[in-house]
Amino acid sequence: MSPLPPSESVLFAIYLVAITAEAMSGALAAGRRDMDIFGVVVIAFVAALGGGTIRDLILGRFPIGWTQHPEYVYIVITAGLLTTVVAPFMQNLHRMFLVLDAMGLVAFSLIGCSVAMQMEYATVVVIMAGMTTGICGGILRDVLCAQVPVVFRRELYASVSLAVCGLFLVLHAQGVDADLNTAISFAAGLTLRLLAIWRRWSLPVFSYQDRWE
Amino acid sequence: MSPLPPSESVLFAIYLVAITAEAMSGALAAGRRDMDIFGVVVIAFVAALGGGTIRDLILGRFPIGWTQHPEYVYIVITAGLLTTVVAPFMQNLHRMFLVLDAMGLVAFSLIGCSVAMQMEYATVVVIMAGMTTGICGGILRDVLCAQVPVVFRRELYASVSLAVCGLFLVLHAQGVDADLNTAISFAAGLTLRLLAIWRRWSLPVFSYQDRWE
Amino acid sequence: MSPLPPSESVLFAIYLVAITAEAMSGALAAGRRDMDIFGVVVIAFVAALGGGTIRDLILGRFPIGWTQHPEYVYIVITAGLLTTVVAPFMQNLHRMFLVLDAMGLVAFSLIGCSVAMQMEYATVVVIMAGMTTGICGGILRDVLCAQVPVVFRRELYASVSLAVCGLFLVLHAQGVDADLNTAISFAAGLTLRLLAIWRRWSLPVFSYQDRWE
Repeated sequence: MSPLPPSESVLFAIYLVAITAEAMSGALAAGRRDMDIFGVVVIAFVAALGGGTIRDLILGRFPIGWTQHPEYVYIVITAGLLTTVVAPFMQNLHRMFLVLDAMGLVAFSLIGCSVAMQMEYATVVVIMAGMTTGICGGILRDVLCAQVPVVFRRELYASVSLAVCGLFLVLHAQGVDADLNTAISFAAGLTLRLLAIWRRWSLPVFSYQDRWE
Repeated sequence: MSPLPPSESVLFAIYLVAITAEAMSGALAAGRRDMDIFGVVVIAFVAALGGGTIRDLILGRFPIGWTQHPEYVYIVITAGLLTTVVAPFMQNLHRMFLVLDAMGLVAFSLIGCSVAMQMEYATVVVIMAGMTTGICGGILRDVLCAQVPVVFRRELYASVSLAVCGLFLVLHAQGVDADLNTAISFAAGLTLRLLAIWRRWSLPVFSYQDRWE
Repeated sequence: MSPLPPSESVLFAIYLVAITAEAMSGALAAGRRDMDIFGVVVIAFVAALGGGTIRDLILGRFPIGWTQHPEYVYIVITAGLLTTVVAPFMQNLHRMFLVLDAMGLVAFSLIGCSVAMQMEYATVVVIMAGMTTGICGGILRDVLCAQVPVVFRRELYASVSLAVCGLFLVLHAQGVDADLNTAISFAAGLTLRLLAIWRRWSLPVFSYQDRWE
């Protein structure tokens, strides 16, 4: 039920920062589409808790995480509503927001891996559970805003999630202590993401045009 | 398995009206996108039964409601196909359609609350189950038609669902008899929705433009 | 866990062809939207395994099929990546691709029916499980690419799935041996799909324009 054992309380604190940051990203996306206050709250919710919901559905893990933690729902709704108030001032907070979002991506990925690992799924499923938790919230947010998900186009966003999951699994296989493993993977993932933003790293793009379909 | 106990048979009758109305709304949305007959049936199905499906998935309630009630599927398919025949005459039925749709919204919301309450979920989850049942069919319909869900932009649509769920829970906490509670909540919700349409009430909109993302 | 009993090993071989073909269709769709390599892999995955995932969710069948078969995931990822390499040469492979895609549609539909039948769902649910498996991968692919699903507009695509499921159920009710039934239904469905492509058969379209919603 609880997404994390007590020993991972640092990751849990980061998780709270992460759902707040993702809820804010959802509220801003809703604002770009001129949605009403209710739409803002829904998109904030989906962006913050949608990835974990899809992960739990795919892993067959019931009850779904947030249904047992009403406090997450309140945090996310509050963050979404506050964003509509502070958004005019956020131009100056741009960099802080990117860092929070990067922390969210990495924390979500590690939590997703942990959950699937505890359920003893195969390695590839563990990685996919981590990535699902990390990036599906953003995908759902963009689909509900009727646009092609930025996750599929932005600098190394999903690749960072993949790298974090891979590193976490490798260290785990090496017998590294869980807390230490979490700390190392988190730091490495955050560094990679911030470097990717700063240096504008990106994956090769596949462009394809045809006339026959 | 059965979505409602026998004593709620009035609500059940309204439920049948509701899935019919939502199936029609789905068929019309498909028609606006020039879909073929099959697309019409799928969108009708999703609009009418998609909200309850997502609710059941999130609550971990298997088997999913409609899989145990093939008659719902037949009603929805029939309503979708009939709509393609009667649509040219529906301009004159516009007001009747809005009333049916409003009844559907309120009935779906109350049914969703009941289901989650019987499963003993926390209050916030009960409310979200009601709203999911009430509005997710419309969201799925619009996503499949590649447009921003009108639910996030139309006059008090989702807010009515929230108000109905809240009233139902408050009356329940006061010990009001379930049937009476359902009747009061239904009447209040329907009145609110029709007033909102008539007076063009709407929530404040959050518009946000930026250059940095 | 295993999607098919050993006696259906021919259908299983076709299934492997099918997920490869659908993964390729996903990669091409991603390429049309200029996605990066990661986006290509995700869309390939969703197009190939998304239909079965939704079927398993709706039927409450856990664990989800592919989570127990990591090899499917590897096949799909490989097919998606290879497509980015061979796409420039695929104009000449257009017809072969359409045949593979048709085989996939029919095989997915038959597998979906079998799964629901083994779980003893009602007839209409069995048919819907078959169609969900057959066409939902393509629907998810198109939604993630922010376009109206071609399934709802292309020549008899979904109708072929419906016809295959119907024939399979009728022959099953007549007591036809499962392997023979599979072979007949597969051949009939493939023929129908290829004829529909060749003769440009299509369903009537429902076009609807209004000013009041």
